[in-house]
Amino acid sequence: MPSSDILRTDRPSRTPDHGRPVAPSRSPWRPLGLDEVRITGGFWGDLQDLNASTMIAHVEGWLERLGWTGNFDAAAEGRLPLDRRGREFSDSETYKLLEAMAWEVGRTGDPDLDRRLRALAARVAAAQEPDGYIGTMFGRTGQRPRWSDLEWGHELYCIGHLVQAGVARARTHGDDEIVRVAVRAADHVCEVFGPDGPHQGVCGHPEIEVALVELYRVTGERRYLDQARLFVERRGHGALGEIDFGPTYFQDDVPVRDATVLAGHAVRALYLAAAAVDLAVEDADDELLAAVAGQVRTTLARRTYLTGGMGAHHEGESFGADFELPSDRAYAETCAGIGSVMVNHRLLLQTQDALHADAVERALYNVVATSPAQDGRAFYYTNTLHQRTPGREVAPDDVSPRAASSLRAPFFAVSCCPTNVTRTVASLASYVATVDDDGVQLHQYAPATLRAALGDGRRVELEVTTAYPHDGRVVVRALAAPQDDWTLTLRVPAWATGAQVTTADGSSRAAEPGYVTVAGPAAGAQVVLDLPVAARWTWADPRVDAVRGQVAVERGPLVLALESTDLGRDVAAAVVSTQEPPVERDGQVLVPVAVRDLAERTWPFGGAPSPAPDDHRLVPLVPYHAWANRGPSTMRVWLPVV
Amino acid sequence: MPSSDILRTDRPSRTPDHGRPVAPSRSPWRPLGLDEVRITGGFWGDLQDLNASTMIAHVEGWLERLGWTGNFDAAAEGRLPLDRRGREFSDSETYKLLEAMAWEVGRTGDPDLDRRLRALAARVAAAQEPDGYIGTMFGRTGQRPRWSDLEWGHELYCIGHLVQAGVARARTHGDDEIVRVAVRAADHVCEVFGPDGPHQGVCGHPEIEVALVELYRVTGERRYLDQARLFVERRGHGALGEIDFGPTYFQDDVPVRDATVLAGHAVRALYLAAAAVDLAVEDADDELLAAVAGQVRTTLARRTYLTGGMGAHHEGESFGADFELPSDRAYAETCAGIGSVMVNHRLLLQTQDALHADAVERALYNVVATSPAQDGRAFYYTNTLHQRTPGREVAPDDVSPRAASSLRAPFFAVSCCPTNVTRTVASLASYVATVDDDGVQLHQYAPATLRAALGDGRRVELEVTTAYPHDGRVVVRALAAPQDDWTLTLRVPAWATGAQVTTADGSSRAAEPGYVTVAGPAAGAQVVLDLPVAARWTWADPRVDAVRGQVAVERGPLVLALESTDLGRDVAAAVVSTQEPPVERDGQVLVPVAVRDLAERTWPFGGAPSPAPDDHRLVPLVPYHAWANRGPSTMRVWLPVV
Repeated sequence: MPSSDILRTDRPSRTPDHGRPVAPSRSPWRPLGLDEVRITGGFWGDLQDLNASTMIAHVEGWLERLGWTGNFDAAAEGRLPLDRRGREFSDSETYKLLEAMAWEVGRTGDPDLDRRLRALAARVAAAQEPDGYIGTMFGRTGQRPRWSDLEWGHELYCIGHLVQAGVARARTHGDDEIVRVAVRAADHVCEVFGPDGPHQGVCGHPEIEVALVELYRVTGERRYLDQARLFVERRGHGALGEIDFGPTYFQDDVPVRDATVLAGHAVRALYLAAAAVDLAVEDADDELLAAVAGQVRTTLARRTYLTGGMGAHHEGESFGADFELPSDRAYAETCAGIGSVMVNHRLLLQTQDALHADAVERALYNVVATSPAQDGRAFYYTNTLHQRTPGREVAPDDVSPRAASSLRAPFFAVSCCPTNVTRTVASLASYVATVDDDGVQLHQYAPATLRAALGDGRRVELEVTTAYPHDGRVVVRALAAPQDDWTLTLRVPAWATGAQVTTADGSSRAAEPGYVTVAGPAAGAQVVLDLPVAARWTWADPRVDAVRGQVAVERGPLVLALESTDLGRDVAAAVVSTQEPPVERDGQVLVPVAVRDLAERTWPFGGAPSPAPDDHRLVPLVPYHAWANRGPSTMRVWLPVV
Repeated sequence: MPSSDILRTDRPSRTPDHGRPVAPSRSPWRPLGLDEVRITGGFWGDLQDLNASTMIAHVEGWLERLGWTGNFDAAAEGRLPLDRRGREFSDSETYKLLEAMAWEVGRTGDPDLDRRLRALAARVAAAQEPDGYIGTMFGRTGQRPRWSDLEWGHELYCIGHLVQAGVARARTHGDDEIVRVAVRAADHVCEVFGPDGPHQGVCGHPEIEVALVELYRVTGERRYLDQARLFVERRGHGALGEIDFGPTYFQDDVPVRDATVLAGHAVRALYLAAAAVDLAVEDADDELLAAVAGQVRTTLARRTYLTGGMGAHHEGESFGADFELPSDRAYAETCAGIGSVMVNHRLLLQTQDALHADAVERALYNVVATSPAQDGRAFYYTNTLHQRTPGREVAPDDVSPRAASSLRAPFFAVSCCPTNVTRTVASLASYVATVDDDGVQLHQYAPATLRAALGDGRRVELEVTTAYPHDGRVVVRALAAPQDDWTLTLRVPAWATGAQVTTADGSSRAAEPGYVTVAGPAAGAQVVLDLPVAARWTWADPRVDAVRGQVAVERGPLVLALESTDLGRDVAAAVVSTQEPPVERDGQVLVPVAVRDLAERTWPFGGAPSPAPDDHRLVPLVPYHAWANRGPSTMRVWLPVV
């Protein structure tokens, strides 16, 4: 089945991109992929195991059950629109599942999953029209015409996710049916939306742009890059029709090159920003790169939750104003966390600024890892930082609009997050490390093995041993290393004041936040990084009104939370004392909590309130990502001190 | 044109209801209407003058300009749906304008306005179908069938406002064309939605219910009361179809009788609650009355802004959870403020609990009066308590979705508030006073004259002289009074600790918050109430996280605000000291404000912030209702103290 004329003919191997989701043509740091880095255990290894054992199959089952996969069969069999199920973007869910399967097969070689992937790809392929168009929502008798609703129709968005699935399969396997379906669909998009095409619009939801750049990177076909550039450049000039939310919602109010901060629908803004970075890299457009980097820096400084979550408004699922970060109304969509990982990873490769690796880590631990329940069978869509009402148990067959209870929901009518989590977790290894001519850079810490060539071709094999983030020690042992000098660069997170690095010769020195570079150890030698992960109090900029007079607790990269399950009553009454640091005992973090008397009043405003009580007792916190795994509860990340 | 067979035949006069918007068949306190109380000046007199001179004509002009009034002409001339303009609820705007005109003609007798009212009523009448149906959005070739979208179509909502216009005209003038149009439409609704009618649903937006009860009160026709009861009782059992917001949005998740707090879309919840009170009164259904009273008490205690504003979510324009009252995302729709006035006025008449009169006063001064600009040509739709960005000047022809800038907007695409303000301001006098067998109760303080019969028929004439709320002295002088004993009851607002009442004999005594009752003064004598309106600091229940570590300033019933215009820079940097009370000087309230150094950080979370500065200077505040009348600004009601 594979043919050699779709993928780049200059490819030295079957998986030339090393199984990387992002493979820029140029970058100071070359990202390593799934065939170069393997996570072997620990926090992320466990989540990858859960993904393999449960999450992918859970999603697969729900897509069948809801009939969203069946839409492709119905298309092939001429049963549309009668038999169509789900919202206008439901095709994308099957594509994201295919992408997750592709990464996962690339990671593990699981033959059963490979079989399921091929079977699903065949059903999708059967639904493709002769001209390359694919989509189950538009174009048939009884449906609206193709491309007639670019604002809300999600046709290009869906094809973008199909292309991403094809890219993942090409990079982990080589040519295959889904790769060719994706290429045919992309060709059709270029014909319809190209410079001389009948349609000159853009998609209301960016996604096709970032997908087309990666398809260009896989195939070497410039028309995909050119098409991505067209889409990005058309946007921001009123390319789309008027909608109630206004043009900012889908980033059509100002060209991405001219924006100063991310705004509007968070996932859309982040996917577009990722595409803009990719385009800037391929076109050596440093002005565009600097523009997006500036937007993201400002977004991190002013519009991002402590968890790394983005999106402060439920209304329009959008970013709020600067410093408008309400805990209880945090939207912080799981997919926006993934979008932040995508953008910050791309910026890291180009800017070498540890800020972006910190942002990736924060979003991975506190947004992406928060979404799935510990059993892998329920997910958060939004990730609130303050749960005011415990809600109710969620039935296993409950399709929630957004997860209305405090608990995660098995699936969503407006779904996107569960499949997004599965594809991200399956490809997590690609965020761990990069290389350049001189050496290796470690950005994320997990037990892992790394086998890669430096930029100049010298081979390095490393083994990372760590219990991070539980423990702050990271041991990097060289299994194989060049005979001559090479370097090992380690990220020191911004919070890690007092970090130390111990080099192969046994000498230790302070490592400032940012990156610390040491001589690469010889084969058999090791370098040790000690990060101070002890629990700490964290305060917010005084402009974040929502958490004024409140304090959070972080431990290493983890944000912690107080749950009513541990307090023994509603967290609304809790007040903490920050006189002493948080206590660590038996693997738990505890903080001194007093309980305020909350008398009912007929009117909640008036004279000065009684001072906060000071009869504190130590109460354990949970990692935020682990909250709501013990039944309905109320929860706070930010704890009142007054 | 008037015929005697529509209105109640037992009516003793042409305006038997004394020009009252609400005329319950029974209530311990009988509300006085526009022909019994006249506001003669002061804050509310000025606003009524602005309504007469500008606001009504402004709204009238916009409805013509946007073609919403023209929709009725297009209906009469068979030009629909081609020539239809505006959203599905736009008919209601013309009806609310008609209602405002009716109250205003009743208040002033303005012959020109009476002519305009009749002309507009004739255009509406011409659009009525032979069977009594009226509505420009449904039922014609090329439109959806009548009643085919009860969830979003607003057909019954619109007819409800038509009925309210008819009721207002009947009560201020007597039978008239718009009264008969309203009666025919109501009859049609009863046929279609009655017990044996072809439709058994309810309207997604409550309004018809409260209107039908009042039409029953005007006409004595029980079918209207029965139909209102049917609508209220059908609701809450999944009477409407599924929508993305869920059934709570339109109060279809739980019967109003079983609810414990107001929830969902705030205006819908409040209009429904008002109808439920009216029904409970007419049916002597004390259980229902107690249920709604309990819901409103809980809503005031937990889900109401300091301003009296209701609705914490932009998403779904809805109430939030208990104590979820973000300042910057306050929706606090102007119409919800009016809805709160409607409900609390009705509950006041039944419960005699000053809490409800306090709520009416708070919403009138700080929500309803905030909406119109000082020139009466622009309005707030939502009423934020914290403006983070100044926005831009609003063009006079700018139709805003919601008023995106910090400034008020001339009109709205989704309009409802400007017309609602005009009808409320025109009928304001009806909230001032009530009577019972023993005497007169004054609930709202404004310069006014009152001529009314007590419950037992004895006549009283009073003149109220006051500069309230600027000054706390209220002088109530009897111009005519019964020879024998009667009582004068005066409301003492909850904040007015230290109030004093001086009776006709010159003796003074303390008056506790609630109601104080004194002997009614003889003709020529007076009673004086002194309310301590001096500016005061106000704190919130510690569960209101959004304003923790912050304090507000109130003066009498007015909430004050800090505007960047007065601070000379963005209010984001302001910190106040509450060591001393606010300062009053030259008619201004000033508070000690220091300006915090707000250094930019790459990540806004980390170690303990620097202590707040203490180099305070006195900065004037403005009444919240008056903010944003001096160009774009940033603004805070709640001021940080830490």
